[in-house]
Formats: sequence, structure tokens, C-alpha cells
Amino acid sequence: MPNMNSSLKTNPARLVQRLDALARVGALDGGGVTRLTFTDADKEGRDLLVRWMRELGLSVQIDRMGNIFGTRDGETDQAPVMFGSHIDTVKAAGTLDGCYGVLAALECIQTLNEQNIKTKRPLAMAAFTNEEGVRYTPGMLGSAAYIGELTAEQAWELRGFDGTRFGDEIQRVGYDGTMEPGAIEPFAYLELHIEQGPLLDLNRVPIGAVDAVVGITWLEITVSGAANHAGTTPMNMRRDAGLAAAKIITYLREIATTLGGNQRATCGMIQFLPNAINVIPSKAIFTVDLRNSDNDALQKAEAMLVEFVKTVEAQDGVSIEVRALEHVLPVQFHPMAIQAVEESAKKLGLQFQRMVSGAGHDAQLMAHKFPSAMIFVPSREGISHSPKEYTPPEELARGAEVLLNAVLVLANRD
Amino acid sequence: MPNMNSSLKTNPARLVQRLDALARVGALDGGGVTRLTFTDADKEGRDLLVRWMRELGLSVQIDRMGNIFGTRDGETDQAPVMFGSHIDTVKAAGTLDGCYGVLAALECIQTLNEQNIKTKRPLAMAAFTNEEGVRYTPGMLGSAAYIGELTAEQAWELRGFDGTRFGDEIQRVGYDGTMEPGAIEPFAYLELHIEQGPLLDLNRVPIGAVDAVVGITWLEITVSGAANHAGTTPMNMRRDAGLAAAKIITYLREIATTLGGNQRATCGMIQFLPNAINVIPSKAIFTVDLRNSDNDALQKAEAMLVEFVKTVEAQDGVSIEVRALEHVLPVQFHPMAIQAVEESAKKLGLQFQRMVSGAGHDAQLMAHKFPSAMIFVPSREGISHSPKEYTPPEELARGAEVLLNAVLVLANRD
Repeated sequence: MPNMNSSLKTNPARLVQRLDALARVGALDGGGVTRLTFTDADKEGRDLLVRWMRELGLSVQIDRMGNIFGTRDGETDQAPVMFGSHIDTVKAAGTLDGCYGVLAALECIQTLNEQNIKTKRPLAMAAFTNEEGVRYTPGMLGSAAYIGELTAEQAWELRGFDGTRFGDEIQRVGYDGTMEPGAIEPFAYLELHIEQGPLLDLNRVPIGAVDAVVGITWLEITVSGAANHAGTTPMNMRRDAGLAAAKIITYLREIATTLGGNQRATCGMIQFLPNAINVIPSKAIFTVDLRNSDNDALQKAEAMLVEFVKTVEAQDGVSIEVRALEHVLPVQFHPMAIQAVEESAKKLGLQFQRMVSGAGHDAQLMAHKFPSAMIFVPSREGISHSPKEYTPPEELARGAEVLLNAVLVLANRD
Repeated sequence: MPNMNSSLKTNPARLVQRLDALARVGALDGGGVTRLTFTDADKEGRDLLVRWMRELGLSVQIDRMGNIFGTRDGETDQAPVMFGSHIDTVKAAGTLDGCYGVLAALECIQTLNEQNIKTKRPLAMAAFTNEEGVRYTPGMLGSAAYIGELTAEQAWELRGFDGTRFGDEIQRVGYDGTMEPGAIEPFAYLELHIEQGPLLDLNRVPIGAVDAVVGITWLEITVSGAANHAGTTPMNMRRDAGLAAAKIITYLREIATTLGGNQRATCGMIQFLPNAINVIPSKAIFTVDLRNSDNDALQKAEAMLVEFVKTVEAQDGVSIEVRALEHVLPVQFHPMAIQAVEESAKKLGLQFQRMVSGAGHDAQLMAHKFPSAMIFVPSREGISHSPKEYTPPEELARGAEVLLNAVLVLANRD
């Protein structure tokens, strides 16, 4: 066994080479990359990943969701430490979201191989299917099935935005494995990811020790008023659905300010009807995205919104329907897994900060069944889901090393 | 000459029959009617109108814009009194907007014929081309050319939303007349119209003596911020184009309230980019419709808006472009014409109120060259541009009688 007080270093150039190689699969002419679940590009990306895993001597298993696992034996048959992410992308994605976590896992294993380091527990790297949810809805389907939130049979019946059936497409690309989802029960799960937000970049802190993932409330709000002529209708006789919507959207900022903490409140989509320059809108339909890592605060945000909606209804003579599109509970990560991350960062002499993930990740589902945590590295200007997504190689290497050393901490525990 | 102290009555049933007959031309299966300029339906409607005019012994003239005039001789060759409106419609229109003014003019002439009443001045009823501006932009093309705001040659080169050329279509339907627009120079122009607003209906006043048409300012406002993840971007780091737009739209009501009078302020159209539920809008594009019959107040409204836009730019870290789409000056009608309307209403024992038109009409262009005024009758609930547009027959008859008697007042003046 190596000296556990020394920290292991990875090979940054090799990690970046693999990121670049994977990014060439599904690369777009104008920059960026698109590899939607079970498309030809996704199959090619999977094939490349599996080839790399086999080259490192990993034992590759595919489950019935197309989730890919590569296991490296430990000195014991205890539950393995699992770490990974996903390699499917959004449309016109960058090179890092998901892929970084998977290819850094590969780099960790290659480093251990080169140094002839054995771990007590086996290691299992993972690439989950359809995290982005672009082709098949919802996202995080692979990890959801892995923890039993839905069955593979249910997932196979899902239809993509392009009309395709999940089950047909998984068979077409040959990733309909035989392993039952959830069959490998990890001792802990770690996921390394770019932050996809601006905080680490802004604070110039190289490592985020993610201790929670925000809960999400998605609402669709429909304001019904009366269409009338913009010129002939006196102001006091209007039932202006657009004005009512504008008041509510403006109030979202007040909700976030009042609650403070990591409360977020966003209106991202809107539509007016009939949407004519000289007609008072009869309908305004818009969405609200509320997020908080504290479920009480998140519920308070929704309650404040509903209360304000009632005030607007009364004041503006409109009727307003608030429909819940999605409620995702906040997830608190496991102290053991978080501490392993922090211990690793300390060992490497890297500054780190506890933080919350504002975006969804496979780790938040894995956390329901297995002790889990995440490691974030900075995203330049917080940009993600864009060809402009960028993290410098040295920062990517630091994250991989924090992952490697955290994995070692956990893999040598009883 | 008849006794000018007695008032003439029209035939309400006949007026309604003609309105119904014209509404059957271009009638839609689900209700409502569509007769866009120079379509087959418009040609059929024009043919019907011209037939009715000839049946009443009117001398029919068509100008190079397709404007239709029917002249009834007076006892002198002095300038005629002109009265009319338009028979083109919006899509899925009601039966009254425009048609009421034209067919009431016909009814007035038939009444005079039946009673063998001669007028000192000739009478000229008019139906102007493309008032609605649905097929060819802008609206009120026929009256604009009539007062020389554009030439027939210019109008003929216009392209419709369907790609057709105005000049080709006017020839196709055979309404390319030989009279030069503006050739008949009226002593005065009157236009009878439904209010298309709620005030007369609400106040239960049968007649509006319209003394002005509001000026209109149409603006397109583009807010540019930064698209970012709704979950990972802290509230204080956002440049939320949607929020900035919502603040400005909310402020429109404050502008109208502050200025009072007949100031109107409306946002009818909006678009967010990228318009995704979990993405802070990078752009918000929306329109503003400001109206006032007082030009100083209208300019003040625009100045208040521009001032507020600057505040939002500074507070929200967005950049905002305000682009003028249209500026139409308010029009004050002519005292002689307004007084003729009021005198007529008094003679008929009908309550009336001075009012402002919030919508555009051919009369506002005619007013630039000829003493003009308008007569409004109630629109049930202010509804217009809709198959639900409705005014009871007895109220339509009252309007026609006010028109007839006002025409007589003017036609017997020197």
C-alpha cells in the first residue's frame, strides 16, 4: 500500500487529449458538439469510451439502461467506490459537461495502474445514460433507473422529441446490456463536474466541495384577462394579462432578495396572446424556475409567489392559474463523501469551498441510495451548455487529482 | 326645401338587411367575415356596393386607388359634402367596422330620394380602399392617397403580406379607376363608425361627437442581457433581459396614470430569447403602443418611458434599444363639422358626448385637407375586430339619422 499521506498526481495532457478526442465525436462545423442519447454520435462516443476502459484493463459491464461501468479489482470484495458522470450532451454543447467527470475517472484509474497502486475496495467508473434529457425526457434517466425510480421497461417505452422509442434506439446502437440497473451497489459515489456557474471562477477557488443540490420548483403561470383595443380601452377598464404577468415576473426578484441564501427565481419563457402590437393581451403564459437547497425556503418562495398572484388577481381583474410542472426535492450529500473530498483537497494543498449545486446531476439521484458527493471545478465565467464552456487544463487536472485522492480515501475505508 | 327644423328618419330594417347582405360576402364558416383588399371577396363586396349605388341613381366614380364615390346632384355645383368609410375588413371581422359607415351613407341617400329632398350642395358617399391595412401596409392607404400623402404609383408598387403587388391586384379585380385621387374636393367629410371602445356602451350614451383622433407612438424595445443558467447564477450576478422588460411593462401603467386624460400605454407583443424554462433570458423584445389626443402629453409619455429605460439599464446591467416603429400625430377635427354633428343629435333629441377616437380612421387623414368629423355609436362591450362585434339595430339607426341630419346641415350651407 502506498503512503496515504502523499497525494497522487494525474497527467493533465492525457486528460485533455481524451477530452479533445471525445469532443471530435459529434463535433459541429461551427464549433461545439452534439451527442444526444443513442444517436450515431453517442454510439461512437460510447465505443471510444469502452475501448479506453478495456485498454486500462477494466471489466466493462453495460446495464439494461445503457449505463456503462468499468470495474478495477480491489484487494477485497467489499462494495466498490463508484465515480463518473455522463457523456451525452445538449445540442451545441461544450466539451466538459459530463465528459470531464467520466474521462477524469479514466485518468484516475490509469494513474493508479501506472503507479501499481492497489485499493482495498474495488473501483467502478460509471457513465450514465441520458443525463441531459434532450432526446428523452426527463434527464438523468440512467441514474434514475439505477436507483429504482423507474424500471428499464418503463424507460424503454419513452418517446423522444424526434418520435423515436428509447427501447428501439438502445437496441439499434447495441447498448442494451444485460446487467440489471442497480446491480453494482457502491460503498460511495463521487462525481466530478464543472460548476456551470460563476462562483468558483469569480472567487478564484479551484475546488468546490458540493454538499447539496438545490431543489427545483417549475411552475407554468397562465394569466387570463381580456383582449381589447390598445387605443380605445381606457386604462381603468382593462384586464391586461401582460401587465399582470410583468408584475409577477418583477416580483420574482423580490422573492429571491427577501429569502436570501441560495434562493433563485427566474422567468425564462413567456408568451402573449393574441400578441399584436395594438391589442391588450388576453393571455400571458410564462414559466417560473425556483431553486433552493433548503426545502423549507423553497416552499416559502412558492407560497410567497402564490400569495402575490392572488393580490394581482384581485387588483388587475384577471384570473391566474399556477400549474406545477416539476417539483424536485433538494438533496443533501453524505458527510463521509463530502469529508473525503475535503480531505483530498487539503492533502493536495488546494483551496476549496463548500457549495451547493444549482443544476441537476446524476449524483443527486445516486445520493438517494448511496453515500454521495460532488467535486466542482471552475467554469470560466460560469458558461456552460455552450461551445464557449471552458476550464483551463491545469484546473481540470486539479479536479481530477481531488477526485483520485478522495476515491483513495474512500476505497481504503472498511 | 324641407323644413330644416324637422329631423329625417332612416329605415333601420333596410340598413340591417344591407349590412347582413354585405357580411355574407366573405363570410367564414365559424362566424365572422374576411374581405381583405382586392381579394375575390372584396371584389364581390365592391360589386354589390356599386350596384346598390347605381340603383339609387348615384353617379359612380372610381379613382386610381380603387376608392369608390357615388355622387348625388345638388341644386348647385358647389363642393359636395362627402361621407362614408371603408368596406375592407380585418381577418375574422364583425359586420360593422367600416361597412356601417358606408351602408348608412347609402341609407341616408335612399331616404333623401324617397322624400324627394334636394340639397344645395351635391352629396358624395365614399368607400376608401385598404383602411384596415391587413393585406397591404400601412392601413388607410386609400384616404392617404386621396389627400396626397402618397401617389397611386407608389401605392401600386406595394407588396402585400402574401407577396402580391397592389397594382396587379387592383387591376385583377377591375377597380383601377381613372379618376385622380383627390379630384372631388369636398366641402366637408363626415364618417359614421362604431366606437370600437366601451365608453358609449358603458355610459349608455347613443352618440359620440368625435372631436379628435389620438396620436400614436409605436416603439419596439429590445433589452440585451446575458443568457445564464437559472440554477447556478446568483441573483446579483444576473443581467436578466426578461426582468428588465417586466419592469418597463409594469411602468407603462404608471405613465398612463401619471399623465391621466386619455393617455393609453400598452405592451401587446413580447418575445424572450432563448425562451427556455431554465435559462435567464439574454434578450427580451417587446412593443409599446402609446396614444393621446394631446401631442405634448404623448411626447411626455415617450420621454418618461425613455427616462425609465435608462434607469433600468443602469440598475440591471442590460443594454436597451428603443426603436420607433411609427409616429402618428393627433388630429383635431373641424369645429364646423363637429357642430353639424352636435346640432343634428340635438335636433333628434339624442344624448351625445364629445369624445376622442382611440383608433385610426380615414377621417383623420381627410381632416388634413377637408373640414372633417366623426360620429360614433356604441359598440357592445367595446368589442371590435371580432365576430362578436355588435350594436343593436335601433342604435345603428340613430347613428345613421345623426349622419343624415348632419349632412343636411352642411349640404345646405353656403
